[in-house]
Amino acid sequence: MSATSTTRPLRLAMVGGGPGSLIGPVHRMAAKLDNRFELVAGVFSREATRNSEAAAKWDVDPARVYSDYESMLAEEAARDDGAEIVAVVTPNDLHFAVSAAALRAGFHVMCDKPATLSLAEALELRAYVQAAGRLYGLTYTYTGYPVVREAREMIARGDLGAVRKVVVEYSQGWLSNPVERQGSKQAEWRADPARAGVGGCIGDIGVHAFNLAEYLTGHRVVSLLPDVATVVPGRTLDDDSNALLRFEGGARGVLISSQISAGARNGLKISVYGETGGLHWSHERHTELSVDWLEGPSQTLHAGSPYLGSGAKGASRIPSGHPEGFIEAFANIYRDMADAIGGDAEAAARIQGIDEGIRGMAFIETAIFGSRQGAGWTKLAGL
Amino acid sequence: MSATSTTRPLRLAMVGGGPGSLIGPVHRMAAKLDNRFELVAGVFSREATRNSEAAAKWDVDPARVYSDYESMLAEEAARDDGAEIVAVVTPNDLHFAVSAAALRAGFHVMCDKPATLSLAEALELRAYVQAAGRLYGLTYTYTGYPVVREAREMIARGDLGAVRKVVVEYSQGWLSNPVERQGSKQAEWRADPARAGVGGCIGDIGVHAFNLAEYLTGHRVVSLLPDVATVVPGRTLDDDSNALLRFEGGARGVLISSQISAGARNGLKISVYGETGGLHWSHERHTELSVDWLEGPSQTLHAGSPYLGSGAKGASRIPSGHPEGFIEAFANIYRDMADAIGGDAEAAARIQGIDEGIRGMAFIETAIFGSRQGAGWTKLAGL
Amino acid sequence: MSATSTTRPLRLAMVGGGPGSLIGPVHRMAAKLDNRFELVAGVFSREATRNSEAAAKWDVDPARVYSDYESMLAEEAARDDGAEIVAVVTPNDLHFAVSAAALRAGFHVMCDKPATLSLAEALELRAYVQAAGRLYGLTYTYTGYPVVREAREMIARGDLGAVRKVVVEYSQGWLSNPVERQGSKQAEWRADPARAGVGGCIGDIGVHAFNLAEYLTGHRVVSLLPDVATVVPGRTLDDDSNALLRFEGGARGVLISSQISAGARNGLKISVYGETGGLHWSHERHTELSVDWLEGPSQTLHAGSPYLGSGAKGASRIPSGHPEGFIEAFANIYRDMADAIGGDAEAAARIQGIDEGIRGMAFIETAIFGSRQGAGWTKLAGL
Amino acid sequence: MSATSTTRPLRLAMVGGGPGSLIGPVHRMAAKLDNRFELVAGVFSREATRNSEAAAKWDVDPARVYSDYESMLAEEAARDDGAEIVAVVTPNDLHFAVSAAALRAGFHVMCDKPATLSLAEALELRAYVQAAGRLYGLTYTYTGYPVVREAREMIARGDLGAVRKVVVEYSQGWLSNPVERQGSKQAEWRADPARAGVGGCIGDIGVHAFNLAEYLTGHRVVSLLPDVATVVPGRTLDDDSNALLRFEGGARGVLISSQISAGARNGLKISVYGETGGLHWSHERHTELSVDWLEGPSQTLHAGSPYLGSGAKGASRIPSGHPEGFIEAFANIYRDMADAIGGDAEAAARIQGIDEGIRGMAFIETAIFGSRQGAGWTKLAGL
Repeated sequence: MSATSTTRPLRLAMVGGGPGSLIGPVHRMAAKLDNRFELVAGVFSREATRNSEAAAKWDVDPARVYSDYESMLAEEAARDDGAEIVAVVTPNDLHFAVSAAALRAGFHVMCDKPATLSLAEALELRAYVQAAGRLYGLTYTYTGYPVVREAREMIARGDLGAVRKVVVEYSQGWLSNPVERQGSKQAEWRADPARAGVGGCIGDIGVHAFNLAEYLTGHRVVSLLPDVATVVPGRTLDDDSNALLRFEGGARGVLISSQISAGARNGLKISVYGETGGLHWSHERHTELSVDWLEGPSQTLHAGSPYLGSGAKGASRIPSGHPEGFIEAFANIYRDMADAIGGDAEAAARIQGIDEGIRGMAFIETAIFGSRQGAGWTKLAGL
Repeated sequence: MSATSTTRPLRLAMVGGGPGSLIGPVHRMAAKLDNRFELVAGVFSREATRNSEAAAKWDVDPARVYSDYESMLAEEAARDDGAEIVAVVTPNDLHFAVSAAALRAGFHVMCDKPATLSLAEALELRAYVQAAGRLYGLTYTYTGYPVVREAREMIARGDLGAVRKVVVEYSQGWLSNPVERQGSKQAEWRADPARAGVGGCIGDIGVHAFNLAEYLTGHRVVSLLPDVATVVPGRTLDDDSNALLRFEGGARGVLISSQISAGARNGLKISVYGETGGLHWSHERHTELSVDWLEGPSQTLHAGSPYLGSGAKGASRIPSGHPEGFIEAFANIYRDMADAIGGDAEAAARIQGIDEGIRGMAFIETAIFGSRQGAGWTKLAGL
Repeated sequence: MSATSTTRPLRLAMVGGGPGSLIGPVHRMAAKLDNRFELVAGVFSREATRNSEAAAKWDVDPARVYSDYESMLAEEAARDDGAEIVAVVTPNDLHFAVSAAALRAGFHVMCDKPATLSLAEALELRAYVQAAGRLYGLTYTYTGYPVVREAREMIARGDLGAVRKVVVEYSQGWLSNPVERQGSKQAEWRADPARAGVGGCIGDIGVHAFNLAEYLTGHRVVSLLPDVATVVPGRTLDDDSNALLRFEGGARGVLISSQISAGARNGLKISVYGETGGLHWSHERHTELSVDWLEGPSQTLHAGSPYLGSGAKGASRIPSGHPEGFIEAFANIYRDMADAIGGDAEAAARIQGIDEGIRGMAFIETAIFGSRQGAGWTKLAGL
Repeated sequence: MSATSTTRPLRLAMVGGGPGSLIGPVHRMAAKLDNRFELVAGVFSREATRNSEAAAKWDVDPARVYSDYESMLAEEAARDDGAEIVAVVTPNDLHFAVSAAALRAGFHVMCDKPATLSLAEALELRAYVQAAGRLYGLTYTYTGYPVVREAREMIARGDLGAVRKVVVEYSQGWLSNPVERQGSKQAEWRADPARAGVGGCIGDIGVHAFNLAEYLTGHRVVSLLPDVATVVPGRTLDDDSNALLRFEGGARGVLISSQISAGARNGLKISVYGETGGLHWSHERHTELSVDWLEGPSQTLHAGSPYLGSGAKGASRIPSGHPEGFIEAFANIYRDMADAIGGDAEAAARIQGIDEGIRGMAFIETAIFGSRQGAGWTKLAGL
């Protein structure tokens, strides 16, 4: 393996994602899938035993399993064969500190969403990103799906005419009961303001819906009218929210996100209506993009098909009819990062970076504070 | 045909529904389908030629084709074999006058929605209904679908626990262009405030979505936060709207209705989430009621199946797998009316009457005026 | 009502379809739906009480309710206002006798499928049809669906290139238990060779699948290789069958029909593959015709859409998104008959008449006898 | 990394799967996904340049990239850190030779399907497997899907009662044109009897459908009645086939497989009907298992749900609603192999091994030769 090979796997260090984590293994599988990254170091858990356990399972040299991220960054930066990029897979409260430190130490950063614990942190992080000369990406998973990329291209190209309306919904039901007090690790931190931030459901999944709406349409949300609620008694953070939206350019929209929609699995779906047609994508049928035209038959585009644009085609590994899924969509984001580090401008353009991170935090805070204050239509904060 | 037969068809007179009408033929086919009504008289159009043409096509005795509804009511009331019930199938501006006159003349009334041109009219009409001792029904079509009735029964019985969230959407795309100025008769009057009232899209289809949400859940909407828009330039009335909802009992909701959702055909769909599951119905798959449970596999109930409750079973004519549709749903409403006139209390309870008519008008006016004023959360007017 | 009016309802007499019949009411509703027929006479049941009961329910003049079809034909033929067409809705054993007698007495005939009890009867009936100068139609229901007509047109036009393969399946589950011995009237006669003929499932629904395959493709089945079975112990006739097919022009096919496919409702579906695409229709999604192209996105055509051909458009009463169903498809067949009687050649061309009736009987007998003899590939009998 | 760790990745060598291969990368990604295998050696292509290219891309030490499998087996067997298992990803003509040699040299083997070029080879290979004391597995991909495993468990447990009917279909359209003569590498060898064997479509995908039918039901096919065709002119091997089936225990079935079903992507689907219900799975909706019951509502089971059995649950990495896909299903087969090598009996029981390999080859040859001879019902050869 030559260090000059363009396809040499990048050396990845991970913070967080230890035993019991949902998203930790997804990051790891996604990073490895295309052989573009190898996991060489990490701080997987604050607890030493769990930290070692994770490292052993993931085949990481015990000498490069660290007890805290500061020492990891220092030691890895000092090695010839040290990590080049840091994946931040902790609860939200550490996103800022780890990302900032990693950037300052010269690492690229791939961070789980939302960018930080607060909008203020995100704005501060922007300075670090700008100063670092390193790449910073957020794993907004749904931007990694092939036909989502196709949809973006279609809208950008004007296939639907001007965008008039957007309806986006992300519904889950797993917090219908107070499972954060019934032993669910993953619910626990999400329900804790100190670790999750001011947003519960809205920070966990609402922000995905928000990002998807902006990513697909290429239009920014300028103001919103939120109705954010805590439905399950005894819960501190929100678990259900609805919001009316206005986009640059005048389109209207609705954003629904909920974790108390009992029975819903992971139901993210979006409809974008333009002057001449409407386009629909649902995560549960993620290989299909359907378009209803004002005139003429409806169409369905299938991931992996030769007639798709280059963005969508590049996001499939196997032909149409051989479904890829969540891990592969995640892997597309990792692959874009690797390509972007290698200098690929198209891949770099697909990365959801600090700007999208700031917008996500602005959405969360505007929704939460706007709803508390009953303020009516509110401009997106901090922009 | 014996006058004492319990199944003697009721004699029906119709006002409106002449050539070019969409809903006129639907009323007629629905009324006839189960042989519970026969069309004996009518004023189908203001234009004499069109009036006669409709009568000939529908096999109505030319002697009982009238030039105005006042003379029709007078003459039919005077005949031994006169009409017993009047179907009002005109644009909205005549709903009140015809319904009120018919009730006062001793006829039962079946009126298309919305009840009247304004909330004030609907409130006034209530007095006529109460005084008349005659039945008054509105054709809220979607309450006629078998599995919609099943869903209502399930929710009432508590199968889902307390209702927490409702998302209802009614999207069409046929007004994406200004077709009211391009020769579409059906668009013309709907776009004209004098004939349609203050609501365009919201009065035409939004009110269906509103009615369905209340019908299914058994909970009344107490306040709403509307965003009503006119998207197509040059149009007077609204063609797109979104609203946040609050229900009695605390459930939250979203109501989306649009006639500029390009490519959408007639997409009414609703999700109701309770504590233990979520129930989903879509008009495009109208024979199916799907339920996702918080625990255990999802279920799909099929119209015409023996396991359904009596309300749903009575609304199918043929077994599961032999799809009935829009006309049959409409026919179920007519059949309920016939049964209710015959004294059937269960059927009578299913009729959407003046109370639902008033609520519909309150919804329309609250949405329109609330949105214009940017008033934030607004209580439903007039109740 | 003038006798010269082109839209005067035709006077219909019915044989069969009394209380407990599934298809009798469907015929009646279908005939009435478009006001093209009025039911004026009938023999609804062999039992006098049930006969009168049906007549009363359907509003037929008691003076024109007859105790046997022979006297009905004689007396109605003698009246000035006598019936003009006879609907035959009995079990199969009477199809031939009633149809032949009605034709000889100068009536048009609309008969439920299959045409007769045996192929020999069907061949004999052909002579009566040819001699009568009257129209004879079979209610092959599925030819009445709008997008089925569109599909036929697409294939005839060569949109798919030459047809290469057909897969048609009609699966029901309602005979999974011996319900013919457990009180099901409808199962009883279908399980009795004296009333149903040599075919059970294959004569009841297999013949629909066969007709649909030939109707859609425009190609005749030339030979078949059947595997016909009786799965439920104690049953005389077949309840499950599979057959391999060869079509004129060389296409191959598979035909599956079953009434022991437990849980299946009324699952008729067909796929036709040509050189450049495959077309799919399923009765449970009967408003949609989907086409997967060898190149380019898939398409879905929706019933009621303006872009459809005239055949499909004429088969919808209301716009796309307002689903019609089984009764309306049936009504389309009745309407074609009325139009054909009125001289409309296009409508006449859509009627499934004695030729299709003979082919259906040939299919049934070839499948049953071919399977019993284990004869391998067998030419369609009698043609 | 300790050699004694139970989760140490197994060392994998690969034969075949060089540039242009579809299934090579799938094997590699699947093997790596759960960190249970590392790719340490290989012969990826007969051409030296392509061989090196593949190795570089996949990060294989150039010293362990061999020019032929014989030397690879010899040298790897001699190393302390030599490969432990060999993946055979070549065209069919090498399956036997490589598998047999690898087993004799003491390696475990994971081979792509079908097992060999002929039934005779498969029967011979059985002796090597039995003698080797090593594990031998075939990547029958569809057995790796979570809800396929659930379906198998449901049927084995008797949830549907005795199995009565099976309909399995695997339709693709990519060979609708003679693409093997138009530059498609993947079509080329599949169309060449010397490399593919006697079966074209039937060996490529029919055998998957056959395996799935036996895997799900737990019943063996005892005889079949095939109709195998070559539709595209100039093609040597079959590209379309239909077959009637009989299973042990008396169930009947139909197996359809085609590569000229224009527009079909990769449409594998199966329905299994028992006495009390029917179960349906389609690859295009692979996360869902739907069951229609003779009595009561239909059910849908979703991959990743907590209510599933252990087999299905163990085959998901992330919760319901986060779709995994083809690669993950493949990875489940690799993971079972790793677990089985580690002594896990449940995993071992899921491996499709030499017995299933022999049955697949028997199916292929019976279908091809039976159809050529027009022999009617034919017992499965060689068993």
